[in-house]
Amino acid sequence: MTINQGLIPAKWAALTPDAQALYDVPNNRRMAWRELDERVRRLANGLRSFGLEVGDRVAVLTRNSVEFQELYFAAGRAGLILQPLNWRLGSAELARLIGDAAPRVVITSAEWRDVAKELQRDCDVPTWLEFGEGGDGSYEDLLARSSADEPVTSAKVGGDDPFFILYTGGTTGRSKGALHTHHSAAMGGLNQTVAERIVPSDVYMLTGQMYHIPVVLSMNYLRHGCPLVLVNFEAEQALRVIEAERVSAFLGITTMLNWMMAVPGFSGYDLSSLRNIQYGGGPMPSSIVRAALESFPCTLIQGYGQTEGPGMTFLSQEDHTEAVAGRHAHRLRSCGREGFVGRLRVVDETGADVPRDGRTAGEIVVKSEANMIGYWNQPELTARTIRDGWMWTGDIATWDEHSYVYIVDRAKDMIISGGENIYSVQVEEAIAAHPAVLECAVIGVPDEEWGESVKAVVVLKPGQSATEADIIGTAKQNLASYQKPKSVDFVDSLPKAPTGKIMKRELRAPYWADRERSV
Amino acid sequence: MTINQGLIPAKWAALTPDAQALYDVPNNRRMAWRELDERVRRLANGLRSFGLEVGDRVAVLTRNSVEFQELYFAAGRAGLILQPLNWRLGSAELARLIGDAAPRVVITSAEWRDVAKELQRDCDVPTWLEFGEGGDGSYEDLLARSSADEPVTSAKVGGDDPFFILYTGGTTGRSKGALHTHHSAAMGGLNQTVAERIVPSDVYMLTGQMYHIPVVLSMNYLRHGCPLVLVNFEAEQALRVIEAERVSAFLGITTMLNWMMAVPGFSGYDLSSLRNIQYGGGPMPSSIVRAALESFPCTLIQGYGQTEGPGMTFLSQEDHTEAVAGRHAHRLRSCGREGFVGRLRVVDETGADVPRDGRTAGEIVVKSEANMIGYWNQPELTARTIRDGWMWTGDIATWDEHSYVYIVDRAKDMIISGGENIYSVQVEEAIAAHPAVLECAVIGVPDEEWGESVKAVVVLKPGQSATEADIIGTAKQNLASYQKPKSVDFVDSLPKAPTGKIMKRELRAPYWADRERSV
Repeated sequence: MTINQGLIPAKWAALTPDAQALYDVPNNRRMAWRELDERVRRLANGLRSFGLEVGDRVAVLTRNSVEFQELYFAAGRAGLILQPLNWRLGSAELARLIGDAAPRVVITSAEWRDVAKELQRDCDVPTWLEFGEGGDGSYEDLLARSSADEPVTSAKVGGDDPFFILYTGGTTGRSKGALHTHHSAAMGGLNQTVAERIVPSDVYMLTGQMYHIPVVLSMNYLRHGCPLVLVNFEAEQALRVIEAERVSAFLGITTMLNWMMAVPGFSGYDLSSLRNIQYGGGPMPSSIVRAALESFPCTLIQGYGQTEGPGMTFLSQEDHTEAVAGRHAHRLRSCGREGFVGRLRVVDETGADVPRDGRTAGEIVVKSEANMIGYWNQPELTARTIRDGWMWTGDIATWDEHSYVYIVDRAKDMIISGGENIYSVQVEEAIAAHPAVLECAVIGVPDEEWGESVKAVVVLKPGQSATEADIIGTAKQNLASYQKPKSVDFVDSLPKAPTGKIMKRELRAPYWADRERSV
Repeated sequence: MTINQGLIPAKWAALTPDAQALYDVPNNRRMAWRELDERVRRLANGLRSFGLEVGDRVAVLTRNSVEFQELYFAAGRAGLILQPLNWRLGSAELARLIGDAAPRVVITSAEWRDVAKELQRDCDVPTWLEFGEGGDGSYEDLLARSSADEPVTSAKVGGDDPFFILYTGGTTGRSKGALHTHHSAAMGGLNQTVAERIVPSDVYMLTGQMYHIPVVLSMNYLRHGCPLVLVNFEAEQALRVIEAERVSAFLGITTMLNWMMAVPGFSGYDLSSLRNIQYGGGPMPSSIVRAALESFPCTLIQGYGQTEGPGMTFLSQEDHTEAVAGRHAHRLRSCGREGFVGRLRVVDETGADVPRDGRTAGEIVVKSEANMIGYWNQPELTARTIRDGWMWTGDIATWDEHSYVYIVDRAKDMIISGGENIYSVQVEEAIAAHPAVLECAVIGVPDEEWGESVKAVVVLKPGQSATEADIIGTAKQNLASYQKPKSVDFVDSLPKAPTGKIMKRELRAPYWADRERSV
């Protein structure tokens, strides 16, 4: 059985008790392993003191903070399942999520006091705790009055026992809770250990949100005994933190790297501690890869994964440096190859591999110990998603003879017109060739004759102009005739998720409002 | 569930089919992943064709070879348990081991044909296969006539299912089979992945024997997709192989490194491919650490473990370079700190931690997913050895405030000579066969070349006589050559505790009096 992941601080409290485990930059708070471990033990015992049983849920609503990390470890050690909540959601959706997992305790930071009050009114949860400046102190009180002994559950729970629920689905539909176990979290971490080539001297800066998959990566650095630096990402501050804390690794998205490189006086920051940057959220244009490799004194890797399975593929350090040097340059458009732990295939509807020809599209399926064990409370959806151990990702891709994977589209964003599959990403790339286009999204809209037809929603660059015919004309140059947009909408901006991902569901919604096959 | 470790070749046959997986130097044979994977599938199906069920045993008697590696993977994929046999043992002991695990198939290389014939006479095993030059070709015939389809067992067996049995002598003298699972093998590998900081460009030279724990390490390099170079260690050849194959890592013992550095023209070899050397079998004198760091262009780490649990502790790369630079130089006498996967404690008889003072001795106990799940066929011994998840190693040590572990007494009285574990009780039993011997104790004494050599301290029966040559001659009849005593002392009586137990520490003391590290 995999050890209980909540015991990570116990290991390092024994090996390097006085070394820094956490540095919470926004709250300017540092914590050594010894203190962290004691607080986690107290918190675990405190949670159990409310009568919670193994498998009960505990919800948390906060920005990245020391307490958030404590709660992951304490929930693990107490045999509980943590339900981290996305603080960007409105209180109605939060109430729905709390209804979904039915936690027995909800913990919020004082910053979300107003939201918490609404939730307390709407949700049937017996125990509410608060921490942080301006709060009622109930969280710290609990720690103070709870035993620092090792909870008995630490040695009994672990392995395939549930550890936390991460919600997904923001951009394509109703949220679903991906249920991860101690083992899947450890194996997701292992994918990263091997891909990033973690060394004991690393210092990890967490730029993502702990209510989402980046926590799997940051907890893995903690598992290596490496300190974790928590930030709410802002480019200039990130550079200062890297310099001051000797940060060696972080997870970014292309935009973050662009912002950082654009900070005035960029070259004046001492970034020599950097060893590797992992980026995600899709391929990085080769010009930016080149700029990043020149600007940051470290390696780059790209990771592709889902809430349901972190670290599915990686484009390696060597893939990047070789591509920049002109060898296999096209691989920068790939998300790389399957990670260390799992197996990945690209298959047709029958589950048979599509040809490794770099052209034939299929769905990505992954068999991996890093995968979630299922969707919380959704056995039917789980059974549809995981079949014979293979998880169907809903992502459409091609693969080549060396098993490099090229994401073509989300299955849900694929347009079917006249029986032809049309991948919106391909159409978007063709439209982007028009010089007046700032950004665009391609969706399927109802069509009496063809089922769906292709619509482009376009944002033009400030001060520039283009007609529908111009856009369609440009698109035609690089597309088959059936792929070209039939109509173009011009808008001022596109709806986006906090991650920067365009929310096509919102774009589609008005067109499908009265249809059976909604988005 | 951990994937079936037998599927390692399937992953790399998909990702890098034409890359070299194995280079068997003695047999001058290279094999790419595609071929290895197909042969493993055929072999797995072939073994199943004899009617073997999941959990049945298959024994193998051979030196390191391609076939040996194939058999590990095929056994895993067919759901069978491999029982690798130590070819240094005599046929009587081999027959006893075969009786212990009751394999349904025994596979031998033609080199052991005579031994195999004896075993066929003495053991009740239905199927015998042979491979290699001068053999009957039955192994290759089996592959040729068996299906190359994926065995159905590959997806059904793995995780905590048994994978192989490695025999160890232990303190009782009689061999015990440490039963490892797919998961424990993977986790033993993970200890090494993190400690050695494995990278995809590594090339691993296997200097140890595949019937023993080094196979866990070499299979782990294969899991990373790194090629494995099999040798029967000889210093000059090893240097040539490192140069020619661009070897980056290997597992050595102090003696091996000494021999290599003593090869005439050592500095003429191109060893620039080396990245890390792991050594084991006890601390390395600081003079040799310094020489090795100067002579080999790579890092050094020390590993300590047992057949029952590989990778229990590691003395890191930085520990070595710092010690040589004069910081914490005493740590070179330590075997380092607990590995990535497990927890280690040094405890008294009640299981309570002894003080971390570097002086108080206790027994090393380890809780780790890399541990065996138990001794084959020995539930009582297993229950005594693994209690509440903690494995009692029988090794006596101190630890310091930074959790560095210092072994003070080997697994009771085990002798390590030239990297081989020699169990004194086995040698004592062999000597006891001499009619003139009243009692005897076997200890390890310092040996410039082998680390330790075997000394017998003998009390003769009153009025009887025997020479050193007589005693050695008798011992040889029931021992492998490396186990026989190199010297014999005759004494009037042996020092004994009030309980009657021979106090070997007192016997050893005069020989080790002027040594840094008393054993």
